[in-house]
Amino acid sequence: MMNDEEVILVNFWSSPFGCRVKIAMEEKGIPYKYIEEDLFNKSSFLSAINPVHKKVPVLVHNHKPICESLNILEYVDEIWSDRSPRFLASDPHQRAQARFWANFIDRELYEASQKIYIGKGEEQVVGKNEVLRILKLVEGELGDKPFFGGDNLGLVDITLVPFYSRFYTWETFGKFSIEEECPGLMAWAKRCMQKESVAKSLPDPLKTYNFILELNKYYYKK
Amino acid sequence: MMNDEEVILVNFWSSPFGCRVKIAMEEKGIPYKYIEEDLFNKSSFLSAINPVHKKVPVLVHNHKPICESLNILEYVDEIWSDRSPRFLASDPHQRAQARFWANFIDRELYEASQKIYIGKGEEQVVGKNEVLRILKLVEGELGDKPFFGGDNLGLVDITLVPFYSRFYTWETFGKFSIEEECPGLMAWAKRCMQKESVAKSLPDPLKTYNFILELNKYYYKK
Repeated sequence: MMNDEEVILVNFWSSPFGCRVKIAMEEKGIPYKYIEEDLFNKSSFLSAINPVHKKVPVLVHNHKPICESLNILEYVDEIWSDRSPRFLASDPHQRAQARFWANFIDRELYEASQKIYIGKGEEQVVGKNEVLRILKLVEGELGDKPFFGGDNLGLVDITLVPFYSRFYTWETFGKFSIEEECPGLMAWAKRCMQKESVAKSLPDPLKTYNFILELNKYYYKK
Repeated sequence: MMNDEEVILVNFWSSPFGCRVKIAMEEKGIPYKYIEEDLFNKSSFLSAINPVHKKVPVLVHNHKPICESLNILEYVDEIWSDRSPRFLASDPHQRAQARFWANFIDRELYEASQKIYIGKGEEQVVGKNEVLRILKLVEGELGDKPFFGGDNLGLVDITLVPFYSRFYTWETFGKFSIEEECPGLMAWAKRCMQKESVAKSLPDPLKTYNFILELNKYYYKK
């Protein structure tokens, strides 16, 4: 890593997507400057670095922005390929498997979970069932391995584990227990939390819950 | 490429997603066995090779299935990395840019376009405007380059060009002209069609239109 490199992460503290990037940078030991974006009053800087989506996280590396969290994870793994751990294995089939599951989580879990804390009545139940279906499929893929990446955190681990901060919110709104439904996945999440890279990156579950409560009051007059 | 390799593409003829894989295989010159899946009576083979989504395309390489079209394109580029062209550049920032745009197209264009030929009234107009917004953003990214990949087809070209077969359907249902709205993108599409890999892989626009008409009658009693 060159000394004159500039690495900036533009994020919002509760974002599970931005949390992925924080974990990745901690795992590789890459220092970076953190800029907290005000999502309720988005900056012109954010529009400039992510004109298509205007969303966090964005990684700005030597003045070049990279958007979308999974895309950033692949970039970080490639540009700092000399730093372990590698988030993707070298075998193309294992890489394809990891990308499949990371994309599956990325496309489905957040949207399903929103139904639990934004929806009411029947929609909440639908959301809970969707979240459990996704988590059980993912738990099946984990199997007996300590991490999806094997012995180390890999692309799928880093994609999924930020949602652990939201389990309390999902369980409280949805009135269910992920520990009861997916014990293997909970054991995995606790294993991840033993890693300093994860423990220091995940937002506090109660702070997250209170934030979502406030957000609901503000937007949906719940 | 070893002689004892087995490469199978499971697809449905009108799928723009499967068409991506056909183009990729033609570009690299990889022979494969084609299996047409009956989407109205899905096979147990499809459930076995894509248990999560039960969708085409699936590439089965030496008995290992790979699902999701962009994932397959990356796999094909990695496993046959000795065959040109490479769909992704070697520079990590260029790779991240290409993945960003390929994912943007993959996530937004098909869904927006469905509103044009499935929706009615106002929803059709919304769909048309969304499709044009996406195409214009993509056209801006192309700029003055002959292809998104530079001088050759790359990940973004292969992701986008199968939709060219559907332009006639979108324009007929939505009553608009892509040529008028996005002349640069139309010139790009015609450039792509001069490649044999593209011309032989794309389904016929009129056959596609008639198929979607029949599908609408069947499902939506239009």
